[in-house]
Amino acid sequence: MGYGIIIQIGIIMSVNLEKLTSLAKRRGFIYPGSDVYGGLSGTWDYGPLGIGLKRNIMNLWWKMFVDERDDIYGVDAAILMNQKVWQASGHVDTFTDPLVECANCKGRFREDKLDNPNKCPNCGKENSFGEARAFNMMFKTNVGPISDENSISYLRPETAQGIFTNFKNVVDTFYPDLPFGIAQQGKAFRNEISPRDFVFRSREFEQMEIEYFIHPDNWKDSFEHWIGECKRFFDELGLPSEMIHELEVMEDDRAHYSKRTIDFEFDFPIGREELMGLAYRTDFDLGNIQRVSKKSMEYRVKGTNETFIPHVIEPSFGVERALMAVLSAAYTEDEVNGEQRVYLKLPAHLAPIKYAVSPLLKNKPELVEKAREVYQLLKQKYGNVMWDDNGNIGKRYRRQDEIGTPYCIVVDFETLDDDMVTVRDRNTTEQQRLPIVNI
Amino acid sequence: MGYGIIIQIGIIMSVNLEKLTSLAKRRGFIYPGSDVYGGLSGTWDYGPLGIGLKRNIMNLWWKMFVDERDDIYGVDAAILMNQKVWQASGHVDTFTDPLVECANCKGRFREDKLDNPNKCPNCGKENSFGEARAFNMMFKTNVGPISDENSISYLRPETAQGIFTNFKNVVDTFYPDLPFGIAQQGKAFRNEISPRDFVFRSREFEQMEIEYFIHPDNWKDSFEHWIGECKRFFDELGLPSEMIHELEVMEDDRAHYSKRTIDFEFDFPIGREELMGLAYRTDFDLGNIQRVSKKSMEYRVKGTNETFIPHVIEPSFGVERALMAVLSAAYTEDEVNGEQRVYLKLPAHLAPIKYAVSPLLKNKPELVEKAREVYQLLKQKYGNVMWDDNGNIGKRYRRQDEIGTPYCIVVDFETLDDDMVTVRDRNTTEQQRLPIVNI
Repeated sequence: MGYGIIIQIGIIMSVNLEKLTSLAKRRGFIYPGSDVYGGLSGTWDYGPLGIGLKRNIMNLWWKMFVDERDDIYGVDAAILMNQKVWQASGHVDTFTDPLVECANCKGRFREDKLDNPNKCPNCGKENSFGEARAFNMMFKTNVGPISDENSISYLRPETAQGIFTNFKNVVDTFYPDLPFGIAQQGKAFRNEISPRDFVFRSREFEQMEIEYFIHPDNWKDSFEHWIGECKRFFDELGLPSEMIHELEVMEDDRAHYSKRTIDFEFDFPIGREELMGLAYRTDFDLGNIQRVSKKSMEYRVKGTNETFIPHVIEPSFGVERALMAVLSAAYTEDEVNGEQRVYLKLPAHLAPIKYAVSPLLKNKPELVEKAREVYQLLKQKYGNVMWDDNGNIGKRYRRQDEIGTPYCIVVDFETLDDDMVTVRDRNTTEQQRLPIVNI
Repeated sequence: MGYGIIIQIGIIMSVNLEKLTSLAKRRGFIYPGSDVYGGLSGTWDYGPLGIGLKRNIMNLWWKMFVDERDDIYGVDAAILMNQKVWQASGHVDTFTDPLVECANCKGRFREDKLDNPNKCPNCGKENSFGEARAFNMMFKTNVGPISDENSISYLRPETAQGIFTNFKNVVDTFYPDLPFGIAQQGKAFRNEISPRDFVFRSREFEQMEIEYFIHPDNWKDSFEHWIGECKRFFDELGLPSEMIHELEVMEDDRAHYSKRTIDFEFDFPIGREELMGLAYRTDFDLGNIQRVSKKSMEYRVKGTNETFIPHVIEPSFGVERALMAVLSAAYTEDEVNGEQRVYLKLPAHLAPIKYAVSPLLKNKPELVEKAREVYQLLKQKYGNVMWDDNGNIGKRYRRQDEIGTPYCIVVDFETLDDDMVTVRDRNTTEQQRLPIVNI
């Protein structure tokens, strides 16, 4: 037996960006940053469910690529780095977007994203733009008590350089054999001229990057290995393979130092866009560091005299894009008994709440007590369990559906006699009676 | 039977800062930030073992205070916030240190930290300082394509304001009963004039903060509750209670809005210094937000018409200080069979590596194969397991001692017959033979 509505599932529809953004805010996944003060464009705050989902994604990545592997070392470099890092990497000179200013309204825009480059999208004036200038996307600040050229620092625009600058530290401390990787998760910042599309392109975001150091002779095999590893991660994220597209980036579109790059694109609500990138970066970064720091970045193969600067394969994941893909793939609308329903069919290991527990009636102390017992039992076992006794059972189901809780558990009068509870499945809405000990 | 040295433990000595810093770098816990380019003062990079330890501390905190409790909600706010946040909180006006400049050498110093305020510590000139000026410790940047007063933003100097600005979001989404808390972990930045003492006072650091919202009538009980919770966390960190001192901050030293503050101090290698703070902040922060944003921060008690701005108890932890306390408490020197030994007696649940596995001899394929089997078995079970076959057994033990690995496991020829291994205890150096299945 079960509570609520007779099961009857109808048409399934897919998501658009407005619906996703609205659900994310309404249900406590993601709020606009600094919302109470009118916001700060391009920043987002994670609510209780959002940070739950984000932690699950980030911890999954760390488990798969650091904990479970023998050949990858984690690091966590500072966000503020010596400015030479960004001089050597080329970011100070070339990490720019073309910026145009309207002579009439002084509005500033990214030239390559204007629908009509002859008309200001703000004031409507035609032919009001001058020459585009290169606008550096790094946020600049000064470190220390004196503000001058020497004290300039930047908020890192990528985590990768924090890995390259620690290459020698890791080699000198752990003497790893090639190939080996260094992995890092952390915040990165880009002063986008026009942040847009929810968390897809924001000014503050989180990356999960690996630099996998190899002998240059082995780059093709290693690249193939990482294609497989990326796909394994997408599978674990529950992303349907038909929504993922492998784009071989052609030579003209690749960074000049890259011999091969694949963009994994995903069918986001905003269209087919980059989910993550896999690049063979040769010895470009370590070579730059060696040139500018005058310190050797060479690696000596154990037991031989062979030394060389290792090459790297770089799988670069964005947390927000992974999370947005997960939410997009999970968002589902259907019809249950003639009523429209929205639910997130999140994989159970990613769902911020795994079980919601409630008493059938909240004004019956014996039910509440028993339900509390079940709740405590599950919470000790799983952690991410929610107590939910607001509204009637139907409303609780709808609310838990919307946040992607795989199972709702209801304690009723029979439970007091037989220690069995009703377990309701999010996807099918089917209800089953199960002994508490079996959950 | 066992390998290596006959057990004989002698005098135990405690740590000083140089030894701790040196071990942290040598063994891959913490490297100076941007080291390859000569550093960036006040920043530190975590190596593979450091990020392991840091993750264990941060995840322990999240588990104890978010996952295992019913009344605390996690959030993760952006580091870059609308400048009004810091105007309302008072940071723009008053988050300053007194800065003096030497008229002779132009060196700048924090006045209240000078040993002799009449003599420049850089050039030695006497009476060369003018009036101290208030130096704001927030790192400033500009967000968006136009750099002017309106686009100023700051790197947050504390995570707390990211919690307060999301108070209404959490209330509107989850309708929690009072008391409830909001918790956040994340980076914070302070432009210290003179960063010092290893990671104790750095320019970039990580906080773990809770704002626990209460009815003002209950502040005393709630404060006592949080004293207990802080101590419970210190216990889990393995910090000896005799190294922790509760300092009741007197009215003159408290922030003007705080009615009670306790600093928990710890016997660091640099002396007795603040480990974390517990403060009753009244309704100061939510009141400021309501005043500046003109949005109500009032809370309505369910089923009543009683509305008020909740008060808060704030337990504020620093990750680096917790980590430095853990390392300081764990650092131990003793004598084993006449030889000096250094080891970290880290609690097993915090140790970055739980088991190190090695074959007795690395040139015997049958031993290596068996040891690999044991290694894989344990790695699948625990994750943080290290393969270590460098040097002889004695050297491996010393190395694992220095990084705090609780147990070293050695596979020898007998293992091939009886499936038993030698398990060596870090603290006692005692060795025991145990069946593999029992580990």
